[in-house]
Amino acid sequence: MTETNYSMLCDFYELTMSNGYFKNGFYKKTVYFDLFFRKVPDNGGFAIAAGLEQVIDYIKNLHFSETDIEYLREKGIFDEEFLKYLSNFKFTGDIYAIPEGTPIFPNEPIITVKAPAIEAQLIETFLLLTINHQTLIATKANRIVRAAQGRTVLEFGSRRAQGATGAVDGARAAYIGGCAGTACTLTDALYGVPAGGTMAHSWIQMFDNEYTAFRTYCELYPENPTLLVDTYNTLKSGVPNAIRVFKEVLVPKGINKFAIRLDSGDISYLSKKARKMLDEAGLENCKIVASNSLDEYLIRDLMMQGAQVDVFGVGERLITSSSSPVFGGVYKLVAVEEPTSGEIIPKIKVSENTTKITNPHFKKLYRYYDNESGKALADELCVYDEVIDFSKPHTIFDQNATWKAKTLTDFTAKELLVPIFKDGECVYESPKIEDIAKYCKDQIGLLWDEVKRFENPHNYYVDLSKKLWDIKNILLNIYQS
Amino acid sequence: MTETNYSMLCDFYELTMSNGYFKNGFYKKTVYFDLFFRKVPDNGGFAIAAGLEQVIDYIKNLHFSETDIEYLREKGIFDEEFLKYLSNFKFTGDIYAIPEGTPIFPNEPIITVKAPAIEAQLIETFLLLTINHQTLIATKANRIVRAAQGRTVLEFGSRRAQGATGAVDGARAAYIGGCAGTACTLTDALYGVPAGGTMAHSWIQMFDNEYTAFRTYCELYPENPTLLVDTYNTLKSGVPNAIRVFKEVLVPKGINKFAIRLDSGDISYLSKKARKMLDEAGLENCKIVASNSLDEYLIRDLMMQGAQVDVFGVGERLITSSSSPVFGGVYKLVAVEEPTSGEIIPKIKVSENTTKITNPHFKKLYRYYDNESGKALADELCVYDEVIDFSKPHTIFDQNATWKAKTLTDFTAKELLVPIFKDGECVYESPKIEDIAKYCKDQIGLLWDEVKRFENPHNYYVDLSKKLWDIKNILLNIYQS
Repeated sequence: MTETNYSMLCDFYELTMSNGYFKNGFYKKTVYFDLFFRKVPDNGGFAIAAGLEQVIDYIKNLHFSETDIEYLREKGIFDEEFLKYLSNFKFTGDIYAIPEGTPIFPNEPIITVKAPAIEAQLIETFLLLTINHQTLIATKANRIVRAAQGRTVLEFGSRRAQGATGAVDGARAAYIGGCAGTACTLTDALYGVPAGGTMAHSWIQMFDNEYTAFRTYCELYPENPTLLVDTYNTLKSGVPNAIRVFKEVLVPKGINKFAIRLDSGDISYLSKKARKMLDEAGLENCKIVASNSLDEYLIRDLMMQGAQVDVFGVGERLITSSSSPVFGGVYKLVAVEEPTSGEIIPKIKVSENTTKITNPHFKKLYRYYDNESGKALADELCVYDEVIDFSKPHTIFDQNATWKAKTLTDFTAKELLVPIFKDGECVYESPKIEDIAKYCKDQIGLLWDEVKRFENPHNYYVDLSKKLWDIKNILLNIYQS
Repeated sequence: MTETNYSMLCDFYELTMSNGYFKNGFYKKTVYFDLFFRKVPDNGGFAIAAGLEQVIDYIKNLHFSETDIEYLREKGIFDEEFLKYLSNFKFTGDIYAIPEGTPIFPNEPIITVKAPAIEAQLIETFLLLTINHQTLIATKANRIVRAAQGRTVLEFGSRRAQGATGAVDGARAAYIGGCAGTACTLTDALYGVPAGGTMAHSWIQMFDNEYTAFRTYCELYPENPTLLVDTYNTLKSGVPNAIRVFKEVLVPKGINKFAIRLDSGDISYLSKKARKMLDEAGLENCKIVASNSLDEYLIRDLMMQGAQVDVFGVGERLITSSSSPVFGGVYKLVAVEEPTSGEIIPKIKVSENTTKITNPHFKKLYRYYDNESGKALADELCVYDEVIDFSKPHTIFDQNATWKAKTLTDFTAKELLVPIFKDGECVYESPKIEDIAKYCKDQIGLLWDEVKRFENPHNYYVDLSKKLWDIKNILLNIYQS
């Protein structure tokens, strides 16, 4: 539809640093950055990776226009040679990433970038904001979908999103996380996420009365219409008028797919009353859609109370992940290549806050599945060149309590980080959006229920290999002294 | 830089309703919609209007491309005549709005749209999401700026924003709300919000040691560099190295503008210790920048504890308004014109929840200022054609407690809704961004301190004129019976 060049969507310091790397020759250095997060939103047990397709589009389109260069020149702090370099800028590095829809855990790289210093630095902000945003919404959507226990969940939140991308890409992420569709037309047009919707209160207000508004709508759209029944009085006016119109207009034509939507009041009470009225009128097939400031907590309660809701339309609390609206992904230098020898030197960022200490080095990430149950057992971070013989029993250990070891025997290892760019060329084809959503659903089926609990979930293990653990400790000891 | 066509960023029901209005002739009806909100985020006393400039750009660019039409045709539910109508679509109506930077209150129209039914309906989602998003961030930024009591506040949150627009337009809104600048380069390039920034931890990690990293930076950017001092150990390594470099590289050149940045640990403790070390080294001019999950509450506490911070860099909690991440603007039909007589018929949306009942009719909005103190006294909503003689004393009353009346004598009335579009033509020129920010600051200076309190602020009055109040009650009585 439209292609926006977001090359200038970077933090200004990425440009000042890059200019510095250019002048002192560091720009020839190959560096390794990991994008990872430290804490699951809503204190959940896992997140859902999303946003990679938009990162790929961004990397492919990376360039600085003459207008961009002129803007930078006017700042008066950038070297002309650097600006010339930028005007011919393209990404030439390698990118590895965990595919969209994969359950992910704290401290594992979602993306690893290997590139000359300036290239790796300039893409920091866009990568972070895109992965942070979509992963946040996919994760929230998945919580809501799980709360709905198989009932359909639709994304309705565009109008309360934090900006246009928040709405459009947010609806994409929500679909990856398990929503069946969206109200956002542009998300359908751009990404193929099914969009749907019927009427606002204004439709009903435009007519002389609710009955005429409903009747006109069903005559126009006899295929699966949803009538909004709360404009005047849900149980006294809305539901009776809907029943009358369904029976007058649709039932005689043999149509029995239609629905009502409750958008205010107590959903538990109103849905049960409405269900009874519909059933008594012989409209057992009529579905009930509910939408009113819903999230996973309210849906869980509604389900416990036996609310008669077939479809949940979820708005602002999904599209902003309002109870936990920040996904705290970070982008940290983990290694630098010696220009002459090509040796990869691991780097660490220490911190007084131990949870902020990074896992150094260029790494691989394995997920181990139990062959008997099929369930995911643990993830393990290894140094990039480690070779593990997975035909033999494999012992993993907790990095925070090294005496807690576990030997895996009948298991399958899967490498999670896959090549996305190689020497600047994209070597990955994003799956279709419905395949990403299906993959996500399947992968979540491989997590133990204990990891999926909303409150106080089981801590899934992300371990370090012995080799990586040793390297990390050596580096920590250097900075301690 | 780039122009994105967001015409398809609408809720799908806006298209199904529009197709219906087209088929039944309603599309010729002129309708009036108000965009307003019901509750100030963070339980504050007021919000700051923002986002109008992006709404104007959107309205000017409104059109459906052949690709859009083809997408809609494939849905199989839209009339060919309607699709032909859409392919020639442009906005032909009137829009009134409160200028950006104005303090606004619940239940007053921020935007009023007068247009043929389809035009008014199709722009609903984009108007809502743009005003909701930017107003949310401008409001949050203003709270943070007020907490900082005159210290500089910078917006640093792009990487944690909810999508690209969240970052770029969010930084624009933050500037309107009082931030002095942003880290987001694109916001500067597009909107002229000053962008700045110096280095990330990765800069320091790239060098053999912190001293060399600092020294290289100051040699490269001697004009007002900010050195990040927490990569290894703030007080033992970062601050001493910064002092050494400032004294070796900058002071001999007569440069005395430079700063250090604290990005982790306890800001109160570290800033006082660092201040002492800097002062003892004779660097009283060195500023201290702090950035670490800050918001208005933490900044207020830091100020109370005497933290020695000159500049606050605020990230995720500002750019997502994380403690209150939803601005609940709604878009409601308030009147319909009789096609033949041209009479404007007021419309109301009732609800069991009394706070959700709308103020009907096409309205004007006045703000009354006390001539003696200059302060804003109250706002009053009037019917569009009411004529009030402001040279005489004017009595306003509380709509929820009609016996609470107040007669204004020495006052000035200002109409807040100004014409933006007239018959589809833009008749408004957006002020420069720095003028919007200045206007905002001035207008907030005209609010009583009681309205500006973070907790439990005074409820600023938004009253209805007697004429409007009567019309509302007549309509309510019709729907009650």
